Amino acid sequence: MGKIQVFKIGGNVVDNQAKLEKFAREFAAVPGAKVLVHGGGAIASAMQKKLGLTPVMIEGRRVTDAETLKIVTMVYAGWCNKSITALLQKNGCNAIGLSGADGAVITAAKRPPVKLASTGETVDYGFVGDLSPENIDSGLIIRFIEAGLTPVFSAITCDKDGNLLNTNADTVASSIAVSLSSKKETELVYCFEKDGVLLDKDDEGSLIPEIDPACFGKLKADGIVADGMLPKLENAFSAIRHGVSKVVIKNSDNILNDRQTVCLDR
Amino acid sequence: MGKIQVFKIGGNVVDNQAKLEKFAREFAAVPGAKVLVHGGGAIASAMQKKLGLTPVMIEGRRVTDAETLKIVTMVYAGWCNKSITALLQKNGCNAIGLSGADGAVITAAKRPPVKLASTGETVDYGFVGDLSPENIDSGLIIRFIEAGLTPVFSAITCDKDGNLLNTNADTVASSIAVSLSSKKETELVYCFEKDGVLLDKDDEGSLIPEIDPACFGKLKADGIVADGMLPKLENAFSAIRHGVSKVVIKNSDNILNDRQTVCLDR
Repeated sequence: MGKIQVFKIGGNVVDNQAKLEKFAREFAAVPGAKVLVHGGGAIASAMQKKLGLTPVMIEGRRVTDAETLKIVTMVYAGWCNKSITALLQKNGCNAIGLSGADGAVITAAKRPPVKLASTGETVDYGFVGDLSPENIDSGLIIRFIEAGLTPVFSAITCDKDGNLLNTNADTVASSIAVSLSSKKETELVYCFEKDGVLLDKDDEGSLIPEIDPACFGKLKADGIVADGMLPKLENAFSAIRHGVSKVVIKNSDNILNDRQTVCLDR
Repeated sequence: MGKIQVFKIGGNVVDNQAKLEKFAREFAAVPGAKVLVHGGGAIASAMQKKLGLTPVMIEGRRVTDAETLKIVTMVYAGWCNKSITALLQKNGCNAIGLSGADGAVITAAKRPPVKLASTGETVDYGFVGDLSPENIDSGLIIRFIEAGLTPVFSAITCDKDGNLLNTNADTVASSIAVSLSSKKETELVYCFEKDGVLLDKDDEGSLIPEIDPACFGKLKADGIVADGMLPKLENAFSAIRHGVSKVVIKNSDNILNDRQTVCLDR
């Protein structure tokens, strides 16, 4: 087995059947060992509302009470995960859809109530999981890959007490990549709705093809990288510091072309 | 690896958290190689109703349009499958929750519209799958078991075109058992709400401990086996004719004791 590529997709793909079908065709065509991690997008919130519940998000994270956990597990680990797996099978990719509970491949810890830095308020996020690369059974993931399978992960994990937990999909992807990198060369590919990191966020022509830590520092200082892109790049360089050989940020619409931003440590 | 035991549980366990927790403890304690297949029970119908849909059952089978497929996949392959997997993990059983799409381990064929014998009416069941033991990748199931994993199957399967399909859990269990029996000694254990086959269906004391084909013929002729028990036993003896060494019918409340009906070909 050569290098492993860990792809992450989010709501812009999962919520859009046409985009998802295109992505599945292209992902199936990616050569070599690969893993897919998917977020859930807006389907879970839509389902909550249909069932008469009000989604509560605090600082971008979903407050997950018992009823909400049931819904996100149904949507992410059920409908999304199995639809993506079936689509990949249709395209000749021998996918296996997994949650963290399966084979205890990703365990997590239930987040204790936290004090928000912004308001000082204490928030209990409920059945939300926090994890680190130590929580990933990379040996099992590699065994699946060696058996010819392509693992497809939802971001539902579980703790030692049998609680399912709602976990951040970006964190799941980077933790899997870091954990795998201790055994095999591993790359992390974040797919989203833009072609990569842009010098001018409204101009797709201003794509930055490569960023190293020094360049990242400068982009931050100049305020070019901000908002949603800032945590994405922080995560990227953290993954690189912890063993991932490079992190690619690119458009989920075109994963087979080379239009992308590569984050690496030169 | 010695013999493999394939357990099937249905709604009486899946719908009842206390019974499910007891079952998970006991199933985790069953020694040796094992597989679990679970039905979905009444949760899917309850979810359909909550979402404003009307469950349509014809001759005991759910008519599965696109919206219903989404719901049964969410409920069976999502919530039920991952809850059971997490519960088994809690009890020290290294479960891996799977649908048929995962690793294409159970493929099925979408049922064409069928003419009902009872009324002559033609019914399109929609996204409903039919399968036979040839549709099971028993080699992959055995590889999971050899890797120390206990496969836990929902009855959601998929076809070659990437359609997820709603499939009968009893049929999934018997097909898995028959397929495994071509490679390893395999037993099938149907768990339900009674202790086994009863001479008098209202008297748990009238348990028949052992049935062979001749005895089954007599029980049928005498009208002692009828209604829901008749297809169960027809399935049991069909599985035995196709290679399963014995079929056990017992109470899901007490899977570790010997109170049961054993179907076998003497």
